[in-house]
This record gives sequence, C-alpha cells and structure tokens, in this order.
Amino acid sequence: MQTPTKPNRPRARELGIQIGVLPTGALNGMTDVPGVKVGHVTRIVGEGPLSPGNGPIRTGVTAILPHDGNIFREKVIATAHIINAFGKSIGLPQLLELGNIETPILLTGTLNVWTAADALVDYVSAQNPGVYSFNPIVGECNDSFLNDILGRHVQREHVFEALETASHTNIEEGVVGAGVGMSGFGWKAGIGTASRVVQVDETAYTTGVLVLTNTGGASDLRIDGFPVGEHLTPEDISEERPGSIMIIVATDGPLSHRQLTRVARRATFGLARTGAIASHGSGDFVIAFSTANRVGSSEDGASPLTFPDEGALSLLFRAVIEATEESIINSLLKAHTVVGRDGNTRHGIPIRRILEIMELQPSEAPSWDE
Amino acid sequence: MQTPTKPNRPRARELGIQIGVLPTGALNGMTDVPGVKVGHVTRIVGEGPLSPGNGPIRTGVTAILPHDGNIFREKVIATAHIINAFGKSIGLPQLLELGNIETPILLTGTLNVWTAADALVDYVSAQNPGVYSFNPIVGECNDSFLNDILGRHVQREHVFEALETASHTNIEEGVVGAGVGMSGFGWKAGIGTASRVVQVDETAYTTGVLVLTNTGGASDLRIDGFPVGEHLTPEDISEERPGSIMIIVATDGPLSHRQLTRVARRATFGLARTGAIASHGSGDFVIAFSTANRVGSSEDGASPLTFPDEGALSLLFRAVIEATEESIINSLLKAHTVVGRDGNTRHGIPIRRILEIMELQPSEAPSWDE
Amino acid sequence: MQTPTKPNRPRARELGIQIGVLPTGALNGMTDVPGVKVGHVTRIVGEGPLSPGNGPIRTGVTAILPHDGNIFREKVIATAHIINAFGKSIGLPQLLELGNIETPILLTGTLNVWTAADALVDYVSAQNPGVYSFNPIVGECNDSFLNDILGRHVQREHVFEALETASHTNIEEGVVGAGVGMSGFGWKAGIGTASRVVQVDETAYTTGVLVLTNTGGASDLRIDGFPVGEHLTPEDISEERPGSIMIIVATDGPLSHRQLTRVARRATFGLARTGAIASHGSGDFVIAFSTANRVGSSEDGASPLTFPDEGALSLLFRAVIEATEESIINSLLKAHTVVGRDGNTRHGIPIRRILEIMELQPSEAPSWDE
Amino acid sequence: MQTPTKPNRPRARELGIQIGVLPTGALNGMTDVPGVKVGHVTRIVGEGPLSPGNGPIRTGVTAILPHDGNIFREKVIATAHIINAFGKSIGLPQLLELGNIETPILLTGTLNVWTAADALVDYVSAQNPGVYSFNPIVGECNDSFLNDILGRHVQREHVFEALETASHTNIEEGVVGAGVGMSGFGWKAGIGTASRVVQVDETAYTTGVLVLTNTGGASDLRIDGFPVGEHLTPEDISEERPGSIMIIVATDGPLSHRQLTRVARRATFGLARTGAIASHGSGDFVIAFSTANRVGSSEDGASPLTFPDEGALSLLFRAVIEATEESIINSLLKAHTVVGRDGNTRHGIPIRRILEIMELQPSEAPSWDE
Repeated sequence: MQTPTKPNRPRARELGIQIGVLPTGALNGMTDVPGVKVGHVTRIVGEGPLSPGNGPIRTGVTAILPHDGNIFREKVIATAHIINAFGKSIGLPQLLELGNIETPILLTGTLNVWTAADALVDYVSAQNPGVYSFNPIVGECNDSFLNDILGRHVQREHVFEALETASHTNIEEGVVGAGVGMSGFGWKAGIGTASRVVQVDETAYTTGVLVLTNTGGASDLRIDGFPVGEHLTPEDISEERPGSIMIIVATDGPLSHRQLTRVARRATFGLARTGAIASHGSGDFVIAFSTANRVGSSEDGASPLTFPDEGALSLLFRAVIEATEESIINSLLKAHTVVGRDGNTRHGIPIRRILEIMELQPSEAPSWDE
Repeated sequence: MQTPTKPNRPRARELGIQIGVLPTGALNGMTDVPGVKVGHVTRIVGEGPLSPGNGPIRTGVTAILPHDGNIFREKVIATAHIINAFGKSIGLPQLLELGNIETPILLTGTLNVWTAADALVDYVSAQNPGVYSFNPIVGECNDSFLNDILGRHVQREHVFEALETASHTNIEEGVVGAGVGMSGFGWKAGIGTASRVVQVDETAYTTGVLVLTNTGGASDLRIDGFPVGEHLTPEDISEERPGSIMIIVATDGPLSHRQLTRVARRATFGLARTGAIASHGSGDFVIAFSTANRVGSSEDGASPLTFPDEGALSLLFRAVIEATEESIINSLLKAHTVVGRDGNTRHGIPIRRILEIMELQPSEAPSWDE
Repeated sequence: MQTPTKPNRPRARELGIQIGVLPTGALNGMTDVPGVKVGHVTRIVGEGPLSPGNGPIRTGVTAILPHDGNIFREKVIATAHIINAFGKSIGLPQLLELGNIETPILLTGTLNVWTAADALVDYVSAQNPGVYSFNPIVGECNDSFLNDILGRHVQREHVFEALETASHTNIEEGVVGAGVGMSGFGWKAGIGTASRVVQVDETAYTTGVLVLTNTGGASDLRIDGFPVGEHLTPEDISEERPGSIMIIVATDGPLSHRQLTRVARRATFGLARTGAIASHGSGDFVIAFSTANRVGSSEDGASPLTFPDEGALSLLFRAVIEATEESIINSLLKAHTVVGRDGNTRHGIPIRRILEIMELQPSEAPSWDE
Repeated sequence: MQTPTKPNRPRARELGIQIGVLPTGALNGMTDVPGVKVGHVTRIVGEGPLSPGNGPIRTGVTAILPHDGNIFREKVIATAHIINAFGKSIGLPQLLELGNIETPILLTGTLNVWTAADALVDYVSAQNPGVYSFNPIVGECNDSFLNDILGRHVQREHVFEALETASHTNIEEGVVGAGVGMSGFGWKAGIGTASRVVQVDETAYTTGVLVLTNTGGASDLRIDGFPVGEHLTPEDISEERPGSIMIIVATDGPLSHRQLTRVARRATFGLARTGAIASHGSGDFVIAFSTANRVGSSEDGASPLTFPDEGALSLLFRAVIEATEESIINSLLKAHTVVGRDGNTRHGIPIRRILEIMELQPSEAPSWDE
C-alpha cells in the first residue's frame, strides 16, 4: 500500500458536523487571527525497514508566527498551560515568567525539538544582531511509530523553510508539517485548526486554535458528543501508543497574561470532549498568545489595549473550547492513510463510515477519499 | 407550588444511561471506597420573601470522612486541583504543602464556610486535646438563588450532626446536604456520586467521586455525549448564575501525593464532558484523597503501600473521568424541584423528556416523579 | 513578672542599623504607600494557668486597608506567594485566579481566622447590599505559647474595631494587634513595618511591608548580616515552636498581577537574610497588592496605569527585600517581654546587648526599655 | 594580561570562613553524596576581538550523574524549583510531572543548551536501543561577556567527554566546565560546591550542592553575612549583566517528590544570604534529586525507602541553605581572572583584600594567587 498524496478529505463542517454555537472566522483556522502566519514543511522520504539515521522519514515541522514583524523586538503576551507534561516542550519557563514570546513557535517530532530550537535561534539571531539571549518555543509529539525518529530529520533548512513560507491564509490540515507522523484515536492524525469569533460590547474578537494531534484511544473517540469510537475502530491497533497533543491558541483579544492563562486552561475542555483522557504517557501542552499588544516595541510608551470586562472572558473560554474540539476532529478527518517505517501503517479514519454512523447527510455529498 | 419531599427520581443507570466502560463499585458511590463515610444535614425552613438572617432557608452541609479513626492522628494523603478559583474553599494551601488532610471534608453554601470551618476545628479539637493547630477543609458553592445566604444557616450543630451521622453506605443524591440550594445547567442540582473499579496486576482499586453541582449553562448540557441542552431547557432561566462545582475524589489506590495530583487533574475531563465550561464566575475545585496509607499514625514506621506502576495511573485517570461525569449527571437527575426565597424556583430536570429525547428505554420503566 | 505596657523600645534605624541602600518613605512603614491604612486591636486579658475558652488572652487582630473607598467595588490588583504553606490563610485561591483583593486584609492568631473571615464578610456585606459572594483575606500565625488559642478570643467586634480605627499613619510595632502572642528567633516578636522608595524614570514608587513575625530559631538570628544569634540567645527557649510569618506588601507601582507576583516572591530573600529557614512547621505567606489601579470601579473604562519597564522591576525587588528584612528586625526590636498563659514568657530581645554585640553607637543613646 | 592556568586559590573554609553549623561531607562537595559523579569540559581557545562562530571561546560544559548505572532504566526521584525564570533550562516540565530524571544533568552556556540536549539524547539513546523518547535535563547561564556565545562552542564531543570523565571525587571549582565564562557580584565566578551531613534518628544523610554562579551585583556581596561588597568592588564593572544561577542539589535522603520539592525551595534562602536579589534578567533554577530510590529499575517491586519524619525535613532545609550559600562563595573564591572576547576581563576576587576586610586569619596563611 502506498501513501496517497494530498487526497481529497473533508473538514468537520463539510460533513455537516457543527461543533458548538459560536460563529467561525472566515477561514475557520488559526490564521483568521489578523497577522498570524502558519507554515509547514513536510518530510516524507523513503520506505521499508527502519534504518536509524537513514529513514524512512515521516516527519516535519510547523511554524506559527504571531505577526509579520520582528517578534523579538515586538514580543506578544503569551502563556502556557500544562495538561500532562510527559513531553519535551522547550521555552515554557521563561514564557511563564515574563508572560510573552519573543520567537515564532515551532511544532515537530519529539527528538527534533533541540535541533529545531537551535535553528530558531539562528533565525531570530540573524534578525537581531548584538543580542545574545533568545528563548525559542518548540513543542512536539512523538512520531516514532511511522518515522525514523532517532534520525532527527528536521534540520535547520526545514525550520527556515517553514518560517519563510508561512502565510496569512494557511489552513492546511492532516498529514502536513509536524503532523506527518502522528496518530490519534487509533487513526492517522496530524494538524487541525479552527476559529471562533465573539462579540464583547461592540467589538469582535477572533480566537484561533491549531493542534498537533497524537493522542486518544481508538474506542474513546467522540465527535461532537457522538461516541464514534464505540462503533468504529481500526482493525489493527496492535501498537497503540500513549500519544500527546500540542494545542496552540491565538487571539486578538487584548488579554493580560493572567487572563490569557485562564483562557488557555479551557483548551482542556475541548480536548476532553473528543474522548481523550490525557493518559500517563501523554505530553499535552497549551501555548496561547494574544496579538493585541506588543511588548518592547517602539510603541512601548503607548497605553496598552485592555479587555473590557473580566466576566466576558467566559465568551473566550467557550471560543477556545469549541475551536479546540473542532481542530482535533479536523486533524483526524483530514489525515489520510500513511505507511511508515517497517511498513507501520496508520489509516485515515473512513469518512463514509462516519457519515453512516453519525447519520450525516452533507448538503453536497462528494465522494471523499478514504 | 410546594417543594416535594424525597420524590422518587432515578440515577443515570436506572434510566439506562451507562457512562464509560469501567465497572462501578457495589453502591456506585463514593462510599464504595472502603472506610469512607458520607453524611448530610439538610436545612429547608420557611417560605416567602427573603429576610436576611431569617430565611427562607435552603441550604445544608455535607461531611466526608476518609476513615473511622482519628483523622488528625491518622492523616491521609491528599491533593487539590483548581479548575477555576472563583471560590472560597478553605484549607487548600496546607493540604498542598503537606500532601495530606487531617480533618474531614465539609461542603456547604458559600457564606457558611468560615462558620463550618470553625465548627470543624471544635470537632477535631475535642478528639485531640493539647493540639493547637488544625487545617479544616471546607468547600462551597453559592446557594443564594434559593437560600437566605447572608443568614449563614449552617451552624455548629449542623456540622456536628453531619459528621456524626455519616455512614459507610450513604449514597443520597440531589436535594440533600450542601446540595439543597444548588442549580446546574438551568435545573435543580445538588449532590451526586458514582464509583469505578480498576484492576492493576491482580489488585482491584476503587475510586469514588462525590460532586456538589452548581454549574453549567442550560443549553450546554450533554448527557453521555448527547446534547440534551439543545433540546431541553427550562422555561424560565431568567436569573442564570455562573455557578461552581466541588468535586471530591476518594480512592484506595496507594498513590503518592504527586500521583494523586495527576489523577485529580482528570476530574476536569469528566466535568467537560457534561458540557460545562467553568465560566469566569465559577469556583471549581477538586479535592482528592487516598485511604491506602495513613500518615502520622502508630504504624508510622511501617513501609507504605505503593502503586505498582506509574503507567497504570491511566486506569485511574479513566476512573475519575467516568465517575465525575456520572456523578454530575446523577446530581441533576436526582434533584427535584425546589422553591426558595422570594419564590425563586429551580425545576428538577424532567425525566420523561430525557427518556424521549435520548430515546432511552429503561428495562423497567417506572413512572418517575418529575 | 508583669507584662509592661508600651515600653520605650527602638526601631532598627534608631539603633543605627541601616538595612540596604534604598531610601525609606517618610514614616518608614506600610502606611507610606498613599491611601493604605493599618489598624490594630490588642487583646491582653487575665493571667495564670490556661483555661481553654477563658484565657489568659494574649492575641489580637490587625487590619490593612488598601484605600479609603469601598474595596469590594474598587478592588485592587493583588497576588500571593507561598514560601511554606503549613498555615491556614484564607482567600488565596480566588485572589490568585482573579488577581485582586476585594476586602481588607486581616492578620490574627491561627484559630481566629475563620471567625475573623466571617466578621469581615459582615463588614463588607453591610457596605454592599445585594451582594452574596465575598472573598475575605485573612492570614495568621500561631500564638498558642502565650495565648488561650482554643478560646478564639478575636471576635466580630474586635475585627470591626481594627477596621474602623485603621489610620493612614499607623506604624505601631511589636506587641500590638495580631502580634500580641507571637515569638521570633526565641524572643518576643510581633508586628514590624518598613518602606522603601525607588525612582523609575522620573516617577517615585513607594513600597511598604508589614510583617507578623512568629518564626526563626534563636541561634540563627542575623541583623543586617551580623550573626547576633551566635552571641545572644534567650536563657530559656525550652519550648521553641516552629513558627510562621505573614508578609504583606503594598506598593503604588502600577504593576500587573504577573509583575506583582515577581515582586512578592522577593520577600523570601528578605526573610532569608534574617537567618530564618522556613522550617517544616512554618506557615510563611506573602500577600501583595498595588494601589495604582482599581478594578471594577466607575473608572473601569479608563486606561490602566502601567509600569514603564519590566527591567525596572529589579528596583522593586530590592525594595521588597530591604523592607521585609527591616520589618522583621523591627518586629523583634519593638517587642517587649510578655508573660502569657501558664506563666509562659517571651522576653523582648535585650537592646543593650545588641548595641554591645554589634558595636553600635546610636547618635543619641537613650536608655531603651528592655 | 593573560589568563593564568589553574592558579592556587582557596575555598571558603581554607580562609577560615565557616558558613552555618552543620558538618560537611568528606570532600565538602556534591560528590560526597554516594554514587554521584561530576565531570567538566573546559573550553578556552583564542584571544582578541569577537568573531561570531570563531571565538574567542570561553565556555564549557559540566555533567552531573546521579549514579553509575543506566540512568534511563534506573531513574531517580527529582524536582525543580524556579526562583526567576529568565532562563532556558530544558526538561523541567516532564521532570515536574513524573518527579524523576532519566538522564544526567548538563550545565553550559546559554546558547549551547539545545546542542547539548541533543547530544545527551545521543548518549542515552546509545545505552537504550529501541527507546524513542528521552527527557534531557540541561541548565545554563549566559557567558556572552567573555565568550563567543553565538558560536555555540560546546559540541557533541564535549558533552560526551564531560559525561565520560565524570568522577566520584570531582570537586573542581571556579573556571572550569560550564563556569568558564561566568561572572558573579562583579567578579569572575563559575562552579562551586559544598555539602552537609545531617542525622535523623541514627541515620546520616548527605546533601550536596553544585552551583553555576553568574549572578549578583558587585556592591551586594555578603560572605557569611559580612557585607564585603560595601568595601570591595571591581574597578571596572562598566558592563554589569543581570546574570543567573543554576543550583543543583543531590541528597541520599529518601525523599518523595513532594518532600524534595520542599527542600529544593530552600536553596533560595542560601542564594539570598549571599546578597543576590535575583534581578529581572536572572535565570535562577534549582534542580534537585535523591539517589535513595530508583524508579523503573529491576527492583521496582521492592518497597521504597521513606524519610522517617516530615518534621525532620527542617534539617535538610538547613543543609541545603548552608551548602548553597557556601557553594556560591566557593564559586567566587576559586575563580581566577579571565580575559575573554574583545579583551573583556573579569577579575578573580582578590583574596588578600577579603582577608583584610573580614579580618580573617587562616590557620595556615599561604600566599594565594589573586
């Protein structure tokens, strides 16, 4: 069996699955948040038995940039929330102390994180001569089931490419970037994204989520509450792994670090609604940032924007919960079957079966690739 | 309309709602954990307009005792996890520092907590002459919609009565103890409980949960994933309040404080599955204890029991998630309509409508009170 | 031996002990922060053997008000830092979630905290009719060596009196308010206070500290680095107790919750410089607030004041360290000998011996009471 | 001026400076804890102007191994405490979740950490074929004042060499390993170490500390309480940098993760006593481990050793405070003058002046190198 290339698979809403009650942004993705850019580099090379250092390669890297400027000079307010910390994320202590990020965020396979962080320092350093301290932010999930993970096949050039090709409209999902080697709920998974818009007083705030899904037990899967995993599991899940998930949250709501932390903690609720339990071996991290204020920029003296009403944070809580849940479902639906090292295979979740089980009738019912 | 007394209402399983996959304990309640006792004192006095200090009274107190002995002398390992801390829980800092509890746990209405804590000190002090420092543990939700909350109608004698009448078989739910004045998802709510049993190697570990539910938006309610709140909301939810939830977890698994903390954090997942979002004004706390080892007892020199395998914690994660979700659903189903101060009314969720909406056909279908 | 009344004892600076390099405020006390008020009620009643419930009474209560207004309606940004949590402080979870305080802060003896919190709710409730949720903040140390602690002799009227008599110029220290029954470094201790002023750009910011000292081993005492405890210990320290310390920090620096948290953590450094080790049984808490912005007031729409430069926080770090160290030393120097229950006695640290040991020559050398 | 090689400089005790009251271990260093190994690789190459990527090189790497075995297979209980997180330490989230470390600990210059972590994974991976997830622990301080930091001159071979040459008796201090490019209190600083032994019941427990000092303002320095910095500052401290400190604590006390965390937090007290304030830009981290129990080893079924008495933790608190303070002083005293990139120079603190200022008369008074 061969790995298909960019098959035609649907997002949740194309199947008629409508998670939550809030409206989405125009793209229903993280890049709906003005200024935010996303880029992916996908590495699929070779087939056959694992030869550590040589492949087969099923990995990649995803870059998220809060804005177009020099992020080190114009940092954005940020936070992190740890759901279960069996993971190797880089940069969180300083992020939590200072409440900001000063580099783009990278996601990749577990054993690539240190090389990716080192490359990210090169990238930021080149923009900021004379600076000798940087706090790169890198998250990861473990792609060893499909990938030659010990080979650490995300190198400097891949990091730079992801950063440089990032775009304001990227909503690619599934087997792309860091998602190439990931699994979820027994099926192939990877990148997913979604967004929500809320109104506070007369201002609209957009919140976008991007996930790297590598978590979930096959029989636990719930799609919008429906217990799909009770009806549909892969035939061969002999090597189920504990998995992990990275959840990145972007918002243009002008939140303080404390307020953003409250919002970030709600991503757990979105994760829980998919049936995931964050098992012992899961590295489940939330990283959130707000694009509304820039720290350390030339406008330093300017009054910061503030969120008008602490109580209205509940709207952002709901936005994050809905967008996280939908991002995870998208990360499954969009991910096609991948055959990796040693012939290890993760199947894309079968779309037709989901339509049957959930009794969905999409308004237009194309024949989705499986 | 009058408040009915002890109407005949079902738990989730009596309706055929089976949450999760793990087996329950014999009672499907917190008291399945050997040694644990639960007691309630229910205070329903008066009707009519609010007269602060005089009533009407719709409040109560719930006591949870980890074992029959002198809890101060034989403390149990404990932890707490904060989901959203808009709440007045007492005793958590010391609990987290020392990793144990040395008093029973009380639950009550918000403004009763300090009186209840003071009474709890009297109770423990009488058992331990010559001791001058105690760390009482009290949690709360706000019952001001139905109750004369400023009147602080839980007094010393009610605390003592709850402690002294606590039993090893108590699985009372709904409008009882601290639950008297609480609401959830727009309906009357209160106390709920459930339990799960997991096997690790050849040993069975029982985990019980007891919740005090006062949270949830009416349209958000999900029962075992089914979006009940999309189909069924109370006619009058004009005064919806932010609410809170207290989640108490007991286990006989011999966990360390660190391991117990990992388990306690999973209660959030059970809460999330009911549709709750832990809104801004919610005081959502988890308090967990393990009965397996006693700290400071005469057996101090003995080797402590240890949990055999960190990875097997995932089983306890699942147990807490399932038992929390089921406890919350029970706390709704079992709660009958209550009319409180100023005629404020919370209706018991209509059982027949749930049967219809969820297309449930309980094996025996008695005519439940509504 | 009788307890003297208000003896004439010096503060550190009167002895020529000059801790740190920053200038003090006008009073060198917490009330140098504009708007802040401090009040004490001192309860010294009876002598002789302990009769629980009847005395002898050696306790009190201290009230700190961030400003003259309705604190519930005009909350101030606040934080807490826990050094060692063997203590019963009330209200910290909500304080940390919302980053503010909405009531005055009380300090008292350990077992008074719940009664004091309940009284504080009455006080705030009377100012805010129709509100049904308050988060009182109360800290404590254990005064059981001198006081009938089980008698809980701080009642509602004492709390109200402390709140109502609080003044903008109060810098009373030693055996006053919550300090009546406390000990430190083997000697009598109690309330101490100090302040520092720093300049950022062209703005002066005042930071005041008030401590309730009940901690420290006799031989560990360092005064401004000098190892006094190696040369001077009380003759009878047979019943040395683990002790605790409450450190309250006020500043008019316009800090966010996150920034204030960074500042509050530095109080540990001031404590450490006195030789304290925060032993196992110590309940050592820092509570900090900023008066610069009011939350939820009528000026809600106004732009908040912001601190101009994160790097300049180091100045506030130093201010808190110096003021904490000096407050603790003041709390010892100012505390005269007290005879308590069962004749238990704590001696005021002998001033003349300190002058000798440290080779101090105060410019004016009055004959201080010992 | 040339950088001298291994000059003859004293430790604190050789000068008659005796910090604290507890006895030291045989070597008065971290390697007094049985099984612990320390290794350093020192990189001093080139002189003259900075040429990023080419030098001059003034950096290094230090390795700490908890025991001789396969650390991944026989993990040790560990914790971390963050004093001020303006730093890039790697591996802390998982360390805190699981309460253990599974690799040696590395210390190095800031921008080397990711390369060092990647090399550490190679090292551990080679010992554990078939494993695809490792959590390397790496701490850092910023050596950019003396070193070509952007050149990242600690490479894989240096990491391996530090690990492979680590010994059970290494107590090298000053300009060695990660300490090569560091400064403290305006002077040259680097590696320092010390140990303490406490008795609980009839068992002796050894606690060792190793610090990487790069923190402290020149005028703030206190040696054993004596305000040396008020009398002695370097002539040229034009480019004072915020600095950082890494504090590694090893103990053979059989502590749980929770207990070890309590102990680790006391390192702050030792740091504070040296006059440091942990300024805004400081990355001050404590990492602590206990060698008493091994997690995941073949003895998994065996009962773990436990600490006999929570109250006796106070002894370990004191041990950590004293050993941390002494380690920092040693890291200064032992560090000789180093000339780095662009001729930047950090002078070794002049020993003779300290003898004069502190009026010390070492029993044997050799002529120490300055």
